[in-house]
Amino acid sequence: MKLSIVKIGGNLIEKETALEQVLENFSKIEGPKILVHGGGKMATQMAEKLGVETKMVDGRRITDQETLNIITMVYGGLVNKTIVAKLQAKNCNALGLSGADLNSIKSVKRPVKTHDFGFVGDITNVNTNMFSLLLNNTITPVCCAISHDGDGQLFNTNADTIASEIAIALANEFEAELYYCFEKKGVLRSIEDEDSVITDINTEIYQALIKENIIADGMLPKLHNCFHALEKNVHKVYIGSVDMLGNEKEIRTTITL
Amino acid sequence: MKLSIVKIGGNLIEKETALEQVLENFSKIEGPKILVHGGGKMATQMAEKLGVETKMVDGRRITDQETLNIITMVYGGLVNKTIVAKLQAKNCNALGLSGADLNSIKSVKRPVKTHDFGFVGDITNVNTNMFSLLLNNTITPVCCAISHDGDGQLFNTNADTIASEIAIALANEFEAELYYCFEKKGVLRSIEDEDSVITDINTEIYQALIKENIIADGMLPKLHNCFHALEKNVHKVYIGSVDMLGNEKEIRTTITL
Repeated sequence: MKLSIVKIGGNLIEKETALEQVLENFSKIEGPKILVHGGGKMATQMAEKLGVETKMVDGRRITDQETLNIITMVYGGLVNKTIVAKLQAKNCNALGLSGADLNSIKSVKRPVKTHDFGFVGDITNVNTNMFSLLLNNTITPVCCAISHDGDGQLFNTNADTIASEIAIALANEFEAELYYCFEKKGVLRSIEDEDSVITDINTEIYQALIKENIIADGMLPKLHNCFHALEKNVHKVYIGSVDMLGNEKEIRTTITL
Repeated sequence: MKLSIVKIGGNLIEKETALEQVLENFSKIEGPKILVHGGGKMATQMAEKLGVETKMVDGRRITDQETLNIITMVYGGLVNKTIVAKLQAKNCNALGLSGADLNSIKSVKRPVKTHDFGFVGDITNVNTNMFSLLLNNTITPVCCAISHDGDGQLFNTNADTIASEIAIALANEFEAELYYCFEKKGVLRSIEDEDSVITDINTEIYQALIKENIIADGMLPKLHNCFHALEKNVHKVYIGSVDMLGNEKEIRTTITL
């Protein structure tokens, strides 16, 4: 059976109308489905309001205790419950989850190498039994970007990685399709040209695009997650806009090995 | 089968050691169980930090949009996920829920009479099918004091009432026992004397205590919830400290009709 795992980016969460459209399209996807979200920009705004400094290293947030509390409030509370309530209104039986809920996603603190990222977790286990139980009861998990270590500690965890690891964990049981949804129509050849979508990327093209400096910054780890998922038997992986959800004819980037 | 529904008060949530003890005792309760929590004091503190004025009328919070956002962050995010992670560490398969999650608790906006309480919901339905599904799979729901209207709106909802309405809704299927857990050992005859616990209160004693002005303020609606639950077939209702959980010999107040 097909299983759709949809990760939505921060820009889609922030704007009321964009979020509404994402959830409308998501709710119409047939069959079992899982939504994954972060909320980084809203967490940064909340940190500013509370006078908590946001520390970034190489584009990654350093998560001290205060920052973890803000992330738990914003991702696990405000964003997650807002999405769940809106999905329920669209007849989608949504259930919000952090990695601690149902022990759904376990992780370990990221080892300190050049930097100590603080309360950031690297995923060690996805609880396939619990996800199967939910999906088999037509429940739609809505996962925020938080995991836990099983000893009571919550961890900030990359939402893209949560999405790919869930897809990988469930790839034996389902025909898992992974959708990375953001504000662009796909991976762009030129960042200035919204219509320059690269419709197909395979390993070979990927290497060429890196050499040409067309893929850089945040798109690098995202594509890394895509290929990793495909190597681990995830059936299909796409990057594109909200319009691609439930519409196979919409322009998007399809990733293949 | 026995089902324990435990509501924990704000003073127990705020203090690290008190919370640890509550969760330790709660996790040891045998059989199916449900935890219900608010977090009013932490929400008030967060509102102060964010410069949002807390408006109270007759001891009840008026919930405007900003306050609802704070409640969703604090109750649904920080408090709920902290509790869930700690329970998982104690081998209790906890699942955090707002009323929107699994459409577990539906409500309508409280009608405007003398005051408009804003985004405050009066419960209209508890989703017994979903609670049964969870309990039958040895999952422990951890419910925060938030409900929803089914049309996408979250509502601030009294945690005592959530606990009693869940107990009532499940009273047909289970032998429901309701525990109101707070910082005192029970209902006190004299607020200055911690040892003046009234061990048994029935309808008759209740009326006498009200006449004597011994029961007043916050204890009135709590006891109202207790009697309402008993009238609706909840098996047993207790008010007491964390020490009463899992220990029938501990002093506490037992409510009977």
